[in-house]
Amino acid sequence: MSTVTTAVEDGIATLTLSRPDVLNAFSLEMGAEFVDALRDLDGDGSVRAIIVTGAGRAFCAGMQLSDSDNVFGFDPSMDLGPAELAARWQEPEVAEGVREPGGKLTLAILECRKPIIAAINGPAVGVGSTMTLPMDFRLASTTARMGFVFARLGITPEACSTWFLPRLIGVPAALELLYSGDIIDARRALEVGLVGSVHEPDDLLLAARAVADQMTRGRSAHAVALTRQLVFRHLADVGVLEAHLAESLALRHAAHGDGREGGLAFLGKREPRFTQPAPDAFDHIFPPSTAAH
Amino acid sequence: MSTVTTAVEDGIATLTLSRPDVLNAFSLEMGAEFVDALRDLDGDGSVRAIIVTGAGRAFCAGMQLSDSDNVFGFDPSMDLGPAELAARWQEPEVAEGVREPGGKLTLAILECRKPIIAAINGPAVGVGSTMTLPMDFRLASTTARMGFVFARLGITPEACSTWFLPRLIGVPAALELLYSGDIIDARRALEVGLVGSVHEPDDLLLAARAVADQMTRGRSAHAVALTRQLVFRHLADVGVLEAHLAESLALRHAAHGDGREGGLAFLGKREPRFTQPAPDAFDHIFPPSTAAH
Amino acid sequence: MSTVTTAVEDGIATLTLSRPDVLNAFSLEMGAEFVDALRDLDGDGSVRAIIVTGAGRAFCAGMQLSDSDNVFGFDPSMDLGPAELAARWQEPEVAEGVREPGGKLTLAILECRKPIIAAINGPAVGVGSTMTLPMDFRLASTTARMGFVFARLGITPEACSTWFLPRLIGVPAALELLYSGDIIDARRALEVGLVGSVHEPDDLLLAARAVADQMTRGRSAHAVALTRQLVFRHLADVGVLEAHLAESLALRHAAHGDGREGGLAFLGKREPRFTQPAPDAFDHIFPPSTAAH
Repeated sequence: MSTVTTAVEDGIATLTLSRPDVLNAFSLEMGAEFVDALRDLDGDGSVRAIIVTGAGRAFCAGMQLSDSDNVFGFDPSMDLGPAELAARWQEPEVAEGVREPGGKLTLAILECRKPIIAAINGPAVGVGSTMTLPMDFRLASTTARMGFVFARLGITPEACSTWFLPRLIGVPAALELLYSGDIIDARRALEVGLVGSVHEPDDLLLAARAVADQMTRGRSAHAVALTRQLVFRHLADVGVLEAHLAESLALRHAAHGDGREGGLAFLGKREPRFTQPAPDAFDHIFPPSTAAH
Repeated sequence: MSTVTTAVEDGIATLTLSRPDVLNAFSLEMGAEFVDALRDLDGDGSVRAIIVTGAGRAFCAGMQLSDSDNVFGFDPSMDLGPAELAARWQEPEVAEGVREPGGKLTLAILECRKPIIAAINGPAVGVGSTMTLPMDFRLASTTARMGFVFARLGITPEACSTWFLPRLIGVPAALELLYSGDIIDARRALEVGLVGSVHEPDDLLLAARAVADQMTRGRSAHAVALTRQLVFRHLADVGVLEAHLAESLALRHAAHGDGREGGLAFLGKREPRFTQPAPDAFDHIFPPSTAAH
Repeated sequence: MSTVTTAVEDGIATLTLSRPDVLNAFSLEMGAEFVDALRDLDGDGSVRAIIVTGAGRAFCAGMQLSDSDNVFGFDPSMDLGPAELAARWQEPEVAEGVREPGGKLTLAILECRKPIIAAINGPAVGVGSTMTLPMDFRLASTTARMGFVFARLGITPEACSTWFLPRLIGVPAALELLYSGDIIDARRALEVGLVGSVHEPDDLLLAARAVADQMTRGRSAHAVALTRQLVFRHLADVGVLEAHLAESLALRHAAHGDGREGGLAFLGKREPRFTQPAPDAFDHIFPPSTAAH
C-alpha cells in the first residue's frame, strides 16, 4: 500500500493516511486502500480497536481536485449547459445507483467490528472531516482544523455526512457548518460537539490509545462487536420494536461463549477471561443492507 | 396580502407576520398567505435567504380561537358525547387524511430552497413556537417568550412539533415543554437549545441578517439548496444507505455548473463566481413525498 | 405482588422495586409484576403520573444471574461449541422472534398513557439503568450509580437501550458507556445528560413529585396521553409527513371534550376544568405495532 500504512501494537492498530506531500489529500486510490486496510484489521483477531490519523502535519486535506481521476467527478473540460445537465439524469449509471467514494468508505467503517477512533492531528477538510463522522470517537489536537467546505466549492456534502452530522451535533449546528463551509479550529469543534476532547499534539495518539484501551481491554470482543452494530444500525430507520427483536436475538446468542464466562466470573467474583472472537457476520441479527463495494 | 408582508434587501428577504392588533395571531388566512409568500420568495432568483419575524411587539400569539373559521377545529357550539366522538373516527375526511394548517406550513418551509431564519422578536405561543422548528435557525430577542401551551388548552401539539422538538432539544426537554405548556423566556430557550442566540431587541434583525449572509453570501445557491434538502430529508425515515445514494446523485449533479466553477476557482486560487440557481425540483434525487397542500 | 409495590397519593403513583435483600435485582417475576402494576396504574383514572424507585439503598442491581430461571438465558451448565452455537440460529423460537424481558418492559413503559419518572435512589446497573431510558424523566440522588455493564459480562445491551441511549445522550457518549461498561456516579450521569437533575437522597422523591405535578396538574390527561404517544412514536421510524398526518388526526379529535373546555376557559379568562380521561387506545391514530407481551 502506498497511500495508507498500518501498525499494530498491544492490540491497538493505527491506520495512517500517508500522502504527507499533499497533506494526505484523498484520492480514489487512498479510498480503496483505506477500505482494504480496514478489512484486514477487522479480520485480524489480535486487533481490538483501530486509530485513524494522518502522516505529517495534516489529517486529510480533502479530495484531490487536480487529479484527472478525482473522487467526485469534477472535470473542468466539461462545461455543460442546462440541456446536457438535464440529460445526465437519464444516464444508465443513475438508474443503477451512483456511489461516490466517501460514502463507500463510510459504509466500510460502519461494517467494521472494532471501535474506530479518529485522532485528528491537523487540517481535516471536506472528506477529511466527513470520514470521521461514522467513527466511534473523534479526538483532536490543538492544531486540528475542520471544515465542510462543499458549498464554497459549489458542490454537495458526501460520505453520508448529511445523515450523520445533524444526528451528532444537532440540526442548526450541522446546517451552519454545511452552508457556511467555514473552517473551524479545535476549540470550536469541541464546543459544537464535533470532537469529544482536545489534546496537545504530542499527547493526541496517547489519548487515543487510552480511549481504545478503556473501550476494549478486558471487554468481550464478541460483545463489543455486537454492541457496535446494534447501536449504529439502530440509528438508522428502524423503530423501537425492531430494536427489541434484534437486541433479543443478539442477547440470546451472546449469553453463551463470552457471556457464559462473564456470568461465571461475576458469580465467582473473579476477572473474566474472554476468548470469543467478533462474529464473522451479523446477517442472523440484521438483514444484510449496508454492504459497501 | 393583508396578514403577511415581504421585503427584499441585498438578497435577503424579510417575511413579516402582520396582524399586530392581535399580536399576529395565526388565522387560516395567514397560514395560506404565508405559504404563498414563501413560494414567491423561493422562486425569486434574487433572494438568497429568508428571515421570518413579527410586526409590532409580538412574533405570533398562537392560533386565533375566537374566529368561527379557526385553524384547528375548536367549535364551542359542538359539545360531543362519547358516542359522537367515536363516530368522528369514521368520517370520510379521516380516511382521506386530515391536514391541520400548522403542518401544511411546516411542509412548505421544508420544501423551500433557501435557508429560513426565525427572528423571534416577542411572544411566540402555540403555532408561533411550532412554526419555527422546521426553520434552519432560531434567534431570539430578550423580549421573546416561547410556549407549547397545547396541553393547557386540552389539545395536542401540531405543525410536526412532536417530530421536530425531541430531535432539536432532546426527549426530556421536549416532553417537559409539551406536557407543562409553560411559557419560557429567551434565556431559558437558549439554555435548552430552542434558540441559538439571544439579542437586544434593536439588534435582532441585524443579527439575523448577519447569519443569512454567513450562510449564503459567496456560497453556491445551487449547492446550498441541495444541501438543505439532503439534511432535512435525511432527518426523516431513511437509513444511511439511502443517504449515501442520494448524496452520490446530488454530488454527481453538482460537480458541474457551480461545482465546475468552484473547483476551477480553488485550483486557480481565486474567488468563485457562482451563478447557478437553486434546482427547480428535487424529484431526481428524492421520491416526491413531502408535497404541501 | 411480592417484588413490586405501588401506592397512590394526590394523583401521583409510586411504583417501588421491592427486593431490597438482593438490591432489587431484576427477576422474570419482577419483570412480569412490573408490567402488570404499570397496566393497573395506567387504567386507574385517579393516577396522573407514575414515579418508579427502589426499596432500600438500591434502585435495581441488574438482572438476577444466580436464579436458574434468569432473565436473559445465562446457563453455566451449557458450554456450547461453535457448531452448537451456529445451530441455535435455526431453532424455531428464533424464527418466531425472541423477546428478552427488559425489552418487554420497555414496550410496556412506552405504551403507558401517563408520564413516568425514574427516581434513581442508588445503584442502577444493567437493566436497572436500561429500564429508565424509555421513561419520560430521570432524576438521581447523589448516591445513584449507573452502569451499562454488558460488555464486561460478555453479553449485549437490552431493553431497547441500543435504540434509546444514542438518541438520549448522543452517539459517542452512548458508545463509551456501552463499550466500557463503566459504573458512573450521579454527577457524571448529569454531565452526559443521562439524568436531568441530582438531589440529596432525602429530597429525591419530593423532587420527583414536583416534576410530576408540573407536568400533569391542571393539564388535560387526555391531551397529555396523546402528546406522550405522538412524541415517542415519532422518535421511531416515521417521517415528517406521517407525523403531520398523525398530529392532524389527534388534534381534530382533541379539539372536542377537554379541547372545547380549554378553548372556552381561555376565551373566558378562567381556569379550565379538564375531565376527559386518557384515550383507551391509540389505534385510530397509529397502526398497532408496539404491543408488549
